[in-house]
Amino acid sequence: MSANVQTDIGFSFTGFMQRGGRTGPHRDGWGITFYEDNGYQTFKDPSPCYDSPMARLVQKNPIKSRAVIAHIRQANRGHVALENTHPFTREQWGDFWTFAHNGQLSDYQILLQKGKHQPVGDTDSEAAFCWLLNELDRKYPQKPADMKAMFRYLGDLCLQLQAFGIANLLLSNGTYLFSFCANTLHWITRRSPFGQARLIDEDITVDFQQEATPNDVVTIIATLPLTSNEHWHKMAAKHYVLFHDGVNIADKSI
Amino acid sequence: MSANVQTDIGFSFTGFMQRGGRTGPHRDGWGITFYEDNGYQTFKDPSPCYDSPMARLVQKNPIKSRAVIAHIRQANRGHVALENTHPFTREQWGDFWTFAHNGQLSDYQILLQKGKHQPVGDTDSEAAFCWLLNELDRKYPQKPADMKAMFRYLGDLCLQLQAFGIANLLLSNGTYLFSFCANTLHWITRRSPFGQARLIDEDITVDFQQEATPNDVVTIIATLPLTSNEHWHKMAAKHYVLFHDGVNIADKSI
Repeated sequence: MSANVQTDIGFSFTGFMQRGGRTGPHRDGWGITFYEDNGYQTFKDPSPCYDSPMARLVQKNPIKSRAVIAHIRQANRGHVALENTHPFTREQWGDFWTFAHNGQLSDYQILLQKGKHQPVGDTDSEAAFCWLLNELDRKYPQKPADMKAMFRYLGDLCLQLQAFGIANLLLSNGTYLFSFCANTLHWITRRSPFGQARLIDEDITVDFQQEATPNDVVTIIATLPLTSNEHWHKMAAKHYVLFHDGVNIADKSI
Repeated sequence: MSANVQTDIGFSFTGFMQRGGRTGPHRDGWGITFYEDNGYQTFKDPSPCYDSPMARLVQKNPIKSRAVIAHIRQANRGHVALENTHPFTREQWGDFWTFAHNGQLSDYQILLQKGKHQPVGDTDSEAAFCWLLNELDRKYPQKPADMKAMFRYLGDLCLQLQAFGIANLLLSNGTYLFSFCANTLHWITRRSPFGQARLIDEDITVDFQQEATPNDVVTIIATLPLTSNEHWHKMAAKHYVLFHDGVNIADKSI
């Protein structure tokens, strides 16, 4: 999620968490990171999301945030463990960057080069995250003044990653939310006039007209649409979209 | 806490959390980090611990762990915000290191040198943490084979920090727990035969004979003793003690 106001993600998370073992096969852990200004709070658990007590707590008491990354895991590379549970967070340029990956990489040991950031667990995903940050650190030893240029370069790096397999990616520092589509990623921006939304995975409908104020802009990005009665944009393969304050501010074709 | 078995810290946390605004003045946030193998889970909140819903959740459902660091904050340097709330965690040598500080530093801008780790918030504590890790990284570009030697060097660095003020410190990677006493730090190791312990801050007594198994070794380190009927070791000023599996394995005089 990327939004221009502190937003409650409870509705989307309610649908999302069902896919973690009930309506979807991703039962090997889940996690969610909420940004609050420059800080963040992560809840994660290497057990299925749909029946996790901690997930129910998050669902019922979500932290209002302008940037959230959540993930449910189906383990392929790396065993089921807390250190292998997404999202992953590292400090770079004095910001906390948070990362989640959907897909699978092979023969990626070359990504485990020396650099500032080293993986702690044994997933392909954390290796890819550290590689991306190490490459960015190499090109930008200081925080770049032109963040859009940095994200364009990040888009090129994401393209290079696809040589190792499939990597649909989300990356945020709490201000920007960068999404890269390898083969499947969808997004929707909700703004005034708001309407109703009906979850696919639970029999729940929300009327955003009642929940939101006229200036709110909220974007949700997900592997597959979370609601059945709204139009979600399907991202083109090998394409990125960059969001800021809930708004699509750049994509690969710009 | 440092322990040789996955241990429930609920009893100690129950006493500790009262000091976060009820029986003590540290009402500007609290946090707790539990290690699970190489991964960690942090709960933190920039509001008073004693009446925090998240703290009550942690108290009632503590994650069993072999290494835990908890902190309650009385803000002096840095505003009340999530990014300024201890403990702080950074990856170094492929491990997650977690840090908490009690004390206050002045004129510490010299610590904000270039290096791998940069603070995100504006506390003296996070600046000190990044400085320590950057100095360690400079001396040990790879994970040191002789960890006791590394901790001796860390003890020297902690001594240097005292030139800027007071820094009682805890640092752990989930395997080792390093404690440095500037002026006040106490510890107790509980092992067989276990007895009863009575909290100072709450009218609660626990019989560890009922809770622990004969081989358990559990050390609690705290600014001030948490129980009234046990003997806590008072650490000497400018002295460190290193714990591993609940056992004091090295201190400055060794």
